[in-house]
Amino acid sequence: MPNYDKIDSYLEKNLDQSIAELSRLVAQPSVGAQNLGMKECASLVGNMLRARGFDVRIMETKGAPVVFGERKGKSGKTLLIYNHYDVQPPEPLELWDSPPFEPSLREGKLYGRGVSDDKGHIVSRLHAIDAILETEGELPCTIKFIIEGEEETASVNLFEFIKQNRDLLKADACMWEFGGVDHREVPMQYLGLRGICYVELSVETASTDVHSGLGGSIFPNAAWRLVWALNTLKGEDERIRIKGFYDGIRQPSARDRELMAALPEVAEEYKSRYGVRQFIKGLSGGVDLRIEEVFTPTCTICGLTSGYQGPGSKTVLPARASAKVDFRLVPDQDPDDIRRKLRSHLDEHGFSDVQITDLGGDPPARTDPDDPFIQLVAKVAEDVYEMPMQLVPLVGGSGPSHPFVHDLGLPVATAGLGYPDTKAHAPNENIRIDLYLKHARHMARVIKELAG
Amino acid sequence: MPNYDKIDSYLEKNLDQSIAELSRLVAQPSVGAQNLGMKECASLVGNMLRARGFDVRIMETKGAPVVFGERKGKSGKTLLIYNHYDVQPPEPLELWDSPPFEPSLREGKLYGRGVSDDKGHIVSRLHAIDAILETEGELPCTIKFIIEGEEETASVNLFEFIKQNRDLLKADACMWEFGGVDHREVPMQYLGLRGICYVELSVETASTDVHSGLGGSIFPNAAWRLVWALNTLKGEDERIRIKGFYDGIRQPSARDRELMAALPEVAEEYKSRYGVRQFIKGLSGGVDLRIEEVFTPTCTICGLTSGYQGPGSKTVLPARASAKVDFRLVPDQDPDDIRRKLRSHLDEHGFSDVQITDLGGDPPARTDPDDPFIQLVAKVAEDVYEMPMQLVPLVGGSGPSHPFVHDLGLPVATAGLGYPDTKAHAPNENIRIDLYLKHARHMARVIKELAG
Repeated sequence: MPNYDKIDSYLEKNLDQSIAELSRLVAQPSVGAQNLGMKECASLVGNMLRARGFDVRIMETKGAPVVFGERKGKSGKTLLIYNHYDVQPPEPLELWDSPPFEPSLREGKLYGRGVSDDKGHIVSRLHAIDAILETEGELPCTIKFIIEGEEETASVNLFEFIKQNRDLLKADACMWEFGGVDHREVPMQYLGLRGICYVELSVETASTDVHSGLGGSIFPNAAWRLVWALNTLKGEDERIRIKGFYDGIRQPSARDRELMAALPEVAEEYKSRYGVRQFIKGLSGGVDLRIEEVFTPTCTICGLTSGYQGPGSKTVLPARASAKVDFRLVPDQDPDDIRRKLRSHLDEHGFSDVQITDLGGDPPARTDPDDPFIQLVAKVAEDVYEMPMQLVPLVGGSGPSHPFVHDLGLPVATAGLGYPDTKAHAPNENIRIDLYLKHARHMARVIKELAG
Repeated sequence: MPNYDKIDSYLEKNLDQSIAELSRLVAQPSVGAQNLGMKECASLVGNMLRARGFDVRIMETKGAPVVFGERKGKSGKTLLIYNHYDVQPPEPLELWDSPPFEPSLREGKLYGRGVSDDKGHIVSRLHAIDAILETEGELPCTIKFIIEGEEETASVNLFEFIKQNRDLLKADACMWEFGGVDHREVPMQYLGLRGICYVELSVETASTDVHSGLGGSIFPNAAWRLVWALNTLKGEDERIRIKGFYDGIRQPSARDRELMAALPEVAEEYKSRYGVRQFIKGLSGGVDLRIEEVFTPTCTICGLTSGYQGPGSKTVLPARASAKVDFRLVPDQDPDDIRRKLRSHLDEHGFSDVQITDLGGDPPARTDPDDPFIQLVAKVAEDVYEMPMQLVPLVGGSGPSHPFVHDLGLPVATAGLGYPDTKAHAPNENIRIDLYLKHARHMARVIKELAG
């Protein structure tokens, strides 16, 4: 590897300036769910790219605009960097120790809404680019940024945007928006995301609730209809009963099992952190638990609501009942296919009265752990973190990586400044400044080594 | 029958004065659920009885006091009158056309919280007693009032009170706290109430909710546990699956069927009022629907709550889930027995983790339609309503009549000033002044005819 002393020295000397720039970005609210400051934030991000000599386009979608920026580099290689400028709502405000949109530096940490998810990633990557430009005068490879504004609201327009801009987004590799170290301070490389199909199931049996003394023996009850319908979806054996649900699932390979086996034990940590007495399916821990956690699809009831829910009793027969249900999907399941199968299942079991509302979905996607770009990103981390990244073939969460992997055909690597106490989506979201600097150093190496 | 001209004339001439007294009673809030004005109202009711020469005792219970009053009469007969001075909370206040505790007379109706349920019944009965005392100087039979303060909060201390005061409450017959005419203006005699066993079923599977991407494949889910547990209680065939649930149920007799057959059709009215497209169990209407409505026990889910219930999606695996469930019981089912059987059922089906919280219960109770007192009350109504009362062997609702029927051994008759639009428990609760007067006239006849 080339010598990174000058770059590292620049990154360290100009760290305060970069944190100041990040603070300005965090101070600009950009809450997608509340449509707060979105255009202003897109414009600010665009200007930050322009300041580094990027050609910038603020591209309209049906929702928040996408900020696209490109700066050519010396080699023929292109790195596509995916980030987002939108943030989660800051509520509940009373639980913040400092105001969410007034970034506050305390004991080596910067606090503020979006400081970790995802504005810190944007600015630390720009910091890496500044260091390269300052020391070398040009980029070693072409860099394209795609910075969307709807990641926190299910990236509903991103798939269409990518389909319509395949040429613009052409690249050799993609760097994902998140990443970080785990509780052992080991940098982790997450190589796949499960898909998701989120639906609301709802039933209406009458125009109004009825006194239970009157209707209990003769009226249909929406809560019972919902319970019976849900019960047909999954049994106590945890087997999902929708016909064809498990079709096309790829079992974990020997390589996947090897990587999963190398990960640390989670059983005791999960039990103590979440107060769970035992796992389902007879699992107790070890690699079996970790593989089951991510390589199997789920049918999770996320919420139930019907009738009277206050203290004490109210004798009412509910006219309406609904459930929020998410299915986590593994390769090669597809959310549209699962939604169709769910409809058929309900109809076949006599539940045509149960309505399905589509609340969003992502297909699952994985990148080969032995892809050269992944190996590169993992290896160059050693120079920064004193160890290579640990490869995780699949994680349980979901995200919009499918079009990057399958439409653009890119290997997608994760790396970032996250750590277990970063509190993304929660009050007191924060980053550690040391990890911010490490991520910039890592990114400088990824950019240079990709160019070859 | 003797001549009632003098009594009727008194009742009519002094009607305004009686309504003024009722208004003073309604103006005294007595909201049991909010512990508002209970002692003041008990004292006011006691004074109203004393003003008629009753010996009054304000008797303490573990909750609101019971007002007991007795005045001896000429004959050896005793009528026990059961009423309550507590009222439902007045909320939502914004839906009242006049303030709930400022009684308002408009177009022949008096509006206010408790005017129908149950203060109007108390004062119209006192009005009848005034008329008899004024015209005859004494009561023809002994009258005992038991006026409790916890009827709207499940009469939790009444059973014990009755057990401990059997001698004090000794009587020949009991007049219940409610009654009235139906939509045809026919006075109805409700001869039985179903019992009730109200429970909350709750499950906790973790100390905190978990991200569904993390826990979906390996953590127990409280909402699923609840759905599966509920599903074992009742199938889509509406048959309740708790072992022994149907033990000891008395089928409706030929006399019950005859009385039920004489009642008006309800199917179309129910469908249009409640927006129900069809009834369960293949019922379409007629006497079969009416018999099923009241002579079968129920297992009704009154409410469901778990996890995320807001708009859109939240990917959460809930740690807690609960359901409110009421069982309506028919003679001779018993709520304590049903609760025990429910616990056994859950344990036997692997749901020992589902907690049962007892939210109250009443056993069912019925009075023989051919009891001489019932026949008397029904017959003397003809002189007031121009038709005898129609006998209804059992209704779907519940109430604390069991200890009156089974501990005190009394026939319990219903009669009152209610009508379909009386809005008990709702904003704009009201009574019709014409029905108030009719009930007083009817009560005067019951008191005199019981004395013989």
